[in-house]
Amino acid sequence: MPNLRQNIITGDWVVIAPERAKRPEDFVQEKTLKKDVLKDCPFCVPNGSAYKTRIAEIEDVYVIPNQFPAFVPEDAVYEQGGALYPAFKSLGYHEVVILKDHKVDLENLSKNVWDELLYIYQKRLQFHYANPAVEYSLVMHNHGENAGASIEHPHSQILATSVMPSYVAKELLGSKDYFKKNQRCIFCDLVKAELGHQERLIFENDDFVAFCAYAARFPFEIWVLPKKHLSDFAQISKSERLNLGEILGRIFRALNSKINDPDYNFFIHTAPPRQGNPSDYYHWHLEIVPRLTKLGGFELGTSDFIDVVSPEKAAFFLKSKPH
Amino acid sequence: MPNLRQNIITGDWVVIAPERAKRPEDFVQEKTLKKDVLKDCPFCVPNGSAYKTRIAEIEDVYVIPNQFPAFVPEDAVYEQGGALYPAFKSLGYHEVVILKDHKVDLENLSKNVWDELLYIYQKRLQFHYANPAVEYSLVMHNHGENAGASIEHPHSQILATSVMPSYVAKELLGSKDYFKKNQRCIFCDLVKAELGHQERLIFENDDFVAFCAYAARFPFEIWVLPKKHLSDFAQISKSERLNLGEILGRIFRALNSKINDPDYNFFIHTAPPRQGNPSDYYHWHLEIVPRLTKLGGFELGTSDFIDVVSPEKAAFFLKSKPH
Repeated sequence: MPNLRQNIITGDWVVIAPERAKRPEDFVQEKTLKKDVLKDCPFCVPNGSAYKTRIAEIEDVYVIPNQFPAFVPEDAVYEQGGALYPAFKSLGYHEVVILKDHKVDLENLSKNVWDELLYIYQKRLQFHYANPAVEYSLVMHNHGENAGASIEHPHSQILATSVMPSYVAKELLGSKDYFKKNQRCIFCDLVKAELGHQERLIFENDDFVAFCAYAARFPFEIWVLPKKHLSDFAQISKSERLNLGEILGRIFRALNSKINDPDYNFFIHTAPPRQGNPSDYYHWHLEIVPRLTKLGGFELGTSDFIDVVSPEKAAFFLKSKPH
Repeated sequence: MPNLRQNIITGDWVVIAPERAKRPEDFVQEKTLKKDVLKDCPFCVPNGSAYKTRIAEIEDVYVIPNQFPAFVPEDAVYEQGGALYPAFKSLGYHEVVILKDHKVDLENLSKNVWDELLYIYQKRLQFHYANPAVEYSLVMHNHGENAGASIEHPHSQILATSVMPSYVAKELLGSKDYFKKNQRCIFCDLVKAELGHQERLIFENDDFVAFCAYAARFPFEIWVLPKKHLSDFAQISKSERLNLGEILGRIFRALNSKINDPDYNFFIHTAPPRQGNPSDYYHWHLEIVPRLTKLGGFELGTSDFIDVVSPEKAAFFLKSKPH
């Protein structure tokens, strides 16, 4: 039978209706071959056109401004629409974080490249938040066409905005309310509970835990939380970056071996500096969303979700031994 | 330059970033051929398997319960998850409204079939709302695989839920606030404004106006509003149903001729009976969302949207003469 489940952090309801799909195995993707480096790939370093515009670089990673930004640093002109049509300049930053090697995937990044990638995320966030116009900065990564990636070369994006994103605002509000009531961080309580009953647990290491979300919006939606309470991703240490890379590598290898390189998005939710002091009640985390189903009229017409895979079965499937 | 625009009803911000796409013409879809009636189409009447389960029928349309419902009428058993894991039975209805003719599309429905389809929506909504457990009932239609349609045979779905959908809750709250401040319906004001400046106007007839949404979440997002203030879609008359069918037919023909049969969703937002008395401030309407782009990590990580087509250019393109 379908069940309504509530995300205790955001208050959002989702329907878990596994009868609408078949088994987790039915989501195994068709085989595709990873393309070779393309001569005209705009992000490959020898090609140079994007590389020339770089604003940050370390050994295996470079950062460029998005060529067609959704958020811009300049004091832009904007159309004013009148009383019924509020408008504002889309202030902020929109950057692309590029792995120099076209052929790597997140499942086979070396320890050092993970460290570099996560480190450069941290540095860009710190840079964005130094601008008082920035309310929020989102690190995200699209892999595959169904996940919105238009360029195959592996890259992340960071979008810094002057308005607080709706989803993050709900997380901040919900975790603040929970803290007021319980004097505890809701994410810390979740980490403890998921490690305890292990029903949705996938992997853990010294610093991180990965589990399928209880009120998942999407099949195989995975949350990665630091075990230690910390609101700000930009403050994690090198050893924590290495352990985050370790657990992410295991997750992407499991997704690849079990559902055959699904398209996915991931994004980091971290405390914004200009919202009171969320350091007590907010706990940064990373969410991974494989893109195995299409959103339909229900999702667009309600902003709510029907998930056709049981999160418990998804977790069991992902951590099962290879066949 | 990208612009932030606010949906004055919901308060949601969207980024309109047309530089990220090219021109409206670039969204023209590849040619596909409409398949013939399939021998094993589950919804074709002669095949009978779905037809046998029908719960309502008029000449050209029949209604069945969804075989794998997300919402169920029975007093279902459900898993209780404990304090961190709120759960509830997914009470309601999940029905499929099927056009008997496999080969019709909404662009070529006859007047009478539009009338029947809209009439049966009204009757099912009335039936759902007679159940006090139902908070909201959503009429929606998925066309094409990218819009979540898994069966080609033309059909709509109606999902009646025991929790108020987030998106509708925001519309109700926003329109109530506006009414308190201005003693006017915000939708009536929008209708007047859009008919006045005509910047995003596509079509109108005696009873309805269709325009591209100012703060569109998706390229070519179209709102259809009745000119007359009415909160409840179930109360529109036969002549209004005929005019709604007329304007929808024109819209789907324009989408088909200008962007070549794009996948799309539409859904009806109508006042729920158990939310105080929204009849003063709420105004039912229908939203059409062509599915021309993929949602990426930004949308999933923020619940906000970047739209890469200017709504004004989309409207101009849709109402331009055929080439």
